[in-house]
Amino acid sequence: MKAAVFDSGIGGLTVVKSLLEHNLFDEIIYFGDTARVPYGIKDKNTIIRYSLEALEFFKNFDPDILIAACNSVSAYAIEELRANAPFPVVGVIEPGVLALKRRSIPKNSDILIIGTKATINSGKYQRLLKKEGFFNIDSKATGLFVPIVEEGIFEGELLDAALRHYFADTKPPKAVILGCTHFPLIADKIRDYFGSETILIHSGEAIVEHLEREFEVKKRDKQCSLKLFASESPQNLKKIAGLWL
Amino acid sequence: MKAAVFDSGIGGLTVVKSLLEHNLFDEIIYFGDTARVPYGIKDKNTIIRYSLEALEFFKNFDPDILIAACNSVSAYAIEELRANAPFPVVGVIEPGVLALKRRSIPKNSDILIIGTKATINSGKYQRLLKKEGFFNIDSKATGLFVPIVEEGIFEGELLDAALRHYFADTKPPKAVILGCTHFPLIADKIRDYFGSETILIHSGEAIVEHLEREFEVKKRDKQCSLKLFASESPQNLKKIAGLWL
Repeated sequence: MKAAVFDSGIGGLTVVKSLLEHNLFDEIIYFGDTARVPYGIKDKNTIIRYSLEALEFFKNFDPDILIAACNSVSAYAIEELRANAPFPVVGVIEPGVLALKRRSIPKNSDILIIGTKATINSGKYQRLLKKEGFFNIDSKATGLFVPIVEEGIFEGELLDAALRHYFADTKPPKAVILGCTHFPLIADKIRDYFGSETILIHSGEAIVEHLEREFEVKKRDKQCSLKLFASESPQNLKKIAGLWL
Repeated sequence: MKAAVFDSGIGGLTVVKSLLEHNLFDEIIYFGDTARVPYGIKDKNTIIRYSLEALEFFKNFDPDILIAACNSVSAYAIEELRANAPFPVVGVIEPGVLALKRRSIPKNSDILIIGTKATINSGKYQRLLKKEGFFNIDSKATGLFVPIVEEGIFEGELLDAALRHYFADTKPPKAVILGCTHFPLIADKIRDYFGSETILIHSGEAIVEHLEREFEVKKRDKQCSLKLFASESPQNLKKIAGLWL
């Protein structure tokens, strides 16, 4: 089984990491739109246009499924991708909400969604959580975590200052949805900040659960082959994949 | 006299601000490539391609001069813009170096260049400074200042942490070249960090001096008309122009 994985840049590699750990595919074709990254500061029409261009690229590989491993794409372009793809398309937002639902926490729990400006402004997580009965939902665009992670900063004074910048007035929630594929790389620090009682929802783990449940994708016997493509600096993507995966 | 001003996003507005303060043009056409911002993390070929596309847009307005108000463009695409433009093209790097030279500081002074990864890696400031006889040149890619400024943070704990992150091991230089058009917005904090002895070179002021000296552009009598264009969210660009200008 062959999966196409699409991200605006390198963040989707955290989703690939989860897919590889569970060995769900024979082959993964990853494309990061590094020439136009980041999407999270861009508007809906731009994200849709770029996503449909990526879809045309993936069609050449005839994948069995397309995984939009980018919350900004999942927030704005998933319907357009589905309408134009000859294969199933899954994003990371619905699986994230369903993963939270399966934790069986009370519906009045404080839920905090963090993500890029595009993801938060789309209101998609908020709508889906509300539909599942959650009503104490807070959301925060924490866009600076993206360049901080891309700078290779996973701990230290600057990250601590950024955590305080965003969360100084936020009391520890019951659950935090990491609504950006860069954030699992600083998940430990987010947990340290809010305390060990707070549940973190990670897009990569959520999508693995979703694929196993909804698509009945099973663990493979042989090792997955991973092909990496980028719209610029593919060698840089490969270097980061070497570090992260 | 009509000037075209090109930037990857909103940072070039700090150059527009200097141009308006000196009222050098009857009309300014500004284009920010907000759909593909930032350029400073991208590679040479991508920056050249995007710059030549912007040039085609500007040709429709028949400007008298094109100002590349973006250090990453000035670092990588200025020759290509010149080769393809039917009007003069000036970047911000040469004017910045010449502005420093006119300060008549000793050639052995410590000079620090800060900018995006693209600008610093191009080595263009370093080469031009060396050509002018400076030899104690240090450079640092301080890319996080860009999203910090775009987040609207101009002071406070997070910016202080970022300053320490980049400059903890840097002794106060004689001069700092602000090699990114976002940085004038945090110039006060950079000066506070290094002390009042440190000279700061600002792209906007440098280009005004350059236009006055090399192109004999003179102060106008009537007010400049400013037209703003963006490859996405032009209303956001207008809002920021309202705040900054």
